[in-house]
Amino acid sequence: MTPSRLTSFTDGVVAIIITIMVLELPAPKAPGLAALAPLSVLFAAYALSFMKVGIYWSQHHNVLQATRRVNGQVLLANLFFLFWLSLIPFVVRWVGEAGVTRDTVIAFGVLMLLCFFSFSLLLLALLRANDSDAPLTKATRRRRKGAITIVAYLLAIGLAFLWPIVSVAIYVAVALMWLVPDNRFEEFID
Amino acid sequence: MTPSRLTSFTDGVVAIIITIMVLELPAPKAPGLAALAPLSVLFAAYALSFMKVGIYWSQHHNVLQATRRVNGQVLLANLFFLFWLSLIPFVVRWVGEAGVTRDTVIAFGVLMLLCFFSFSLLLLALLRANDSDAPLTKATRRRRKGAITIVAYLLAIGLAFLWPIVSVAIYVAVALMWLVPDNRFEEFID
Amino acid sequence: MTPSRLTSFTDGVVAIIITIMVLELPAPKAPGLAALAPLSVLFAAYALSFMKVGIYWSQHHNVLQATRRVNGQVLLANLFFLFWLSLIPFVVRWVGEAGVTRDTVIAFGVLMLLCFFSFSLLLLALLRANDSDAPLTKATRRRRKGAITIVAYLLAIGLAFLWPIVSVAIYVAVALMWLVPDNRFEEFID
Amino acid sequence: MTPSRLTSFTDGVVAIIITIMVLELPAPKAPGLAALAPLSVLFAAYALSFMKVGIYWSQHHNVLQATRRVNGQVLLANLFFLFWLSLIPFVVRWVGEAGVTRDTVIAFGVLMLLCFFSFSLLLLALLRANDSDAPLTKATRRRRKGAITIVAYLLAIGLAFLWPIVSVAIYVAVALMWLVPDNRFEEFID
Repeated sequence: MTPSRLTSFTDGVVAIIITIMVLELPAPKAPGLAALAPLSVLFAAYALSFMKVGIYWSQHHNVLQATRRVNGQVLLANLFFLFWLSLIPFVVRWVGEAGVTRDTVIAFGVLMLLCFFSFSLLLLALLRANDSDAPLTKATRRRRKGAITIVAYLLAIGLAFLWPIVSVAIYVAVALMWLVPDNRFEEFID
Repeated sequence: MTPSRLTSFTDGVVAIIITIMVLELPAPKAPGLAALAPLSVLFAAYALSFMKVGIYWSQHHNVLQATRRVNGQVLLANLFFLFWLSLIPFVVRWVGEAGVTRDTVIAFGVLMLLCFFSFSLLLLALLRANDSDAPLTKATRRRRKGAITIVAYLLAIGLAFLWPIVSVAIYVAVALMWLVPDNRFEEFID
Repeated sequence: MTPSRLTSFTDGVVAIIITIMVLELPAPKAPGLAALAPLSVLFAAYALSFMKVGIYWSQHHNVLQATRRVNGQVLLANLFFLFWLSLIPFVVRWVGEAGVTRDTVIAFGVLMLLCFFSFSLLLLALLRANDSDAPLTKATRRRRKGAITIVAYLLAIGLAFLWPIVSVAIYVAVALMWLVPDNRFEEFID
Repeated sequence: MTPSRLTSFTDGVVAIIITIMVLELPAPKAPGLAALAPLSVLFAAYALSFMKVGIYWSQHHNVLQATRRVNGQVLLANLFFLFWLSLIPFVVRWVGEAGVTRDTVIAFGVLMLLCFFSFSLLLLALLRANDSDAPLTKATRRRRKGAITIVAYLLAIGLAFLWPIVSVAIYVAVALMWLVPDNRFEEFID
């Protein structure tokens, strides 16, 4: 099987996940700019969720570009990854509505780890389905960014017991690190 | 006609069906983890619905991979199948909100049978639209899994009058059986 | 320009339009089958809306299969058509909630005419963008079904002042007429 | 990387953005046409939002037709553009619900400028990723329409302090100007 339909389905699901939150931004009834103020937290949460999901989509795009074959295991791993990804807007909204507290910040960190591990599982399934000298194999050899990410998330979850706001800063820093385009894949694909 | 647009439309519809339930998970207002507890049933229902719809999408993907031609009848059969599939999140949510009772469990079983039969109808339409030695024909010859599924659903509907919880166990077992990747198609398609 | 992206965007929009109504079917809180009864009208309305939008998607699919080129005018005509199509679930829901009355039935008929005319406009734009001996030109020469449809809708709107229920019967009859696969296009396309 | 998946993801997101507002048009409970009257402002707002987003989609379609290569920067610029685009229905709904006042009209103008600048950023990223003699470069050389748009938006924001209704007229005029198909791209692409 070629990956074309896997990507088309994934694009549809991610398109929904990334726009879910704007569906729920309630339009204010009052005409003044002041009416936007109570929405500012939800708005920031929407921007963060959009960024996180957008980064994962870019990663997915890059990895699948380097993929020649998919199989049933890849389909399942992809669904598993999409399931956790679809919970990002839910947890981000919880942080937005209930505030930056120990539990909300931990929940966000745990979800981030689940997304990360399910994406790694997808990578493994892709590697098994493709030959060892496919561009994918070469491209996934270096993985320093991934190690930094895991350590940062674990640190953020631990710090949430003391200073949840520091955890949020770590989450934003990790997101910004991933925003830098990933040359690992681009150099192998034209 | 080639099946490319049929699959692209189906991917869009299934992407919506599979994510509908997360749209309705209400973000708790309270900051503690305890606030997530009342959502656990809805969350489990979301996971089950995601799994069921995801399995059908994988099946659809596999079957359409083996398809060379579609016609008007296939388009209609596909729409008919998508209609029943789109009711899965609705019925799953009903089970989640009203609990595991005789009627909710029967409704779920009946819908599962309708999805199964409409998908079989789609297979028949695809077989009629393609030549007899197309990969599709070979791939759909063996159908033990299908027979087990029908018997299991009928059994679950009958048992719902006595022990609805046993029916739920059967539903989960059928889902897990389908989660095992289906080699029937993969061996014919590269 | 080739029509591939026009169809991919249209598929996305139609996928949303066709599933909008199921998003709004409220899951009952009560566990008995009786709890589904008040939803039966909304359910029938969903089925009708699904059928109408599904038929238009099939038509769109068939026509675009026969298309080799699109241009800016086609893009606009397509957007104009999608706009009216997107109002089908809204009006169908109005019929479902407010009942089969003179005004709701007229509104549905007027919307059906607007969908029909905007789709015809799209056909015209496609014909202008393609050569006169393209498959599309041949395929759209015969148009008896279209004439019957316009007359039937006008009749239904007129009869809505006396017997709205007869208008509904006409709408269903027109839908069933279009459900029969359209050989005009299939014979020209492989 | 080829732009195929960038466009498929964008199509999914834009399909959701363009139909979000119809999801929120509440079906009236009363059966008379009078029941539609209170919805007329929301309906006009939906039409305007649909037109604005539809125009951007057409532009995106035209520009990407002329593109041969995308890279990580293009992916990010595209996500950044989609983020602002996704806020159009939100702000249009605010105008629809709170009325044509100074602040709502300014917010709409500012968002229009943000969409315009993020789309220009996307164009820049595309130009950098493609060779200087690609069709894209030639196609984006003339930019009078863009200059008129910026001046018109700034004017509309300024006039909103005196006569907000004039600003709305300017917004509609700009939209109509862009509705005229853009020959810059079509002449270069077949």
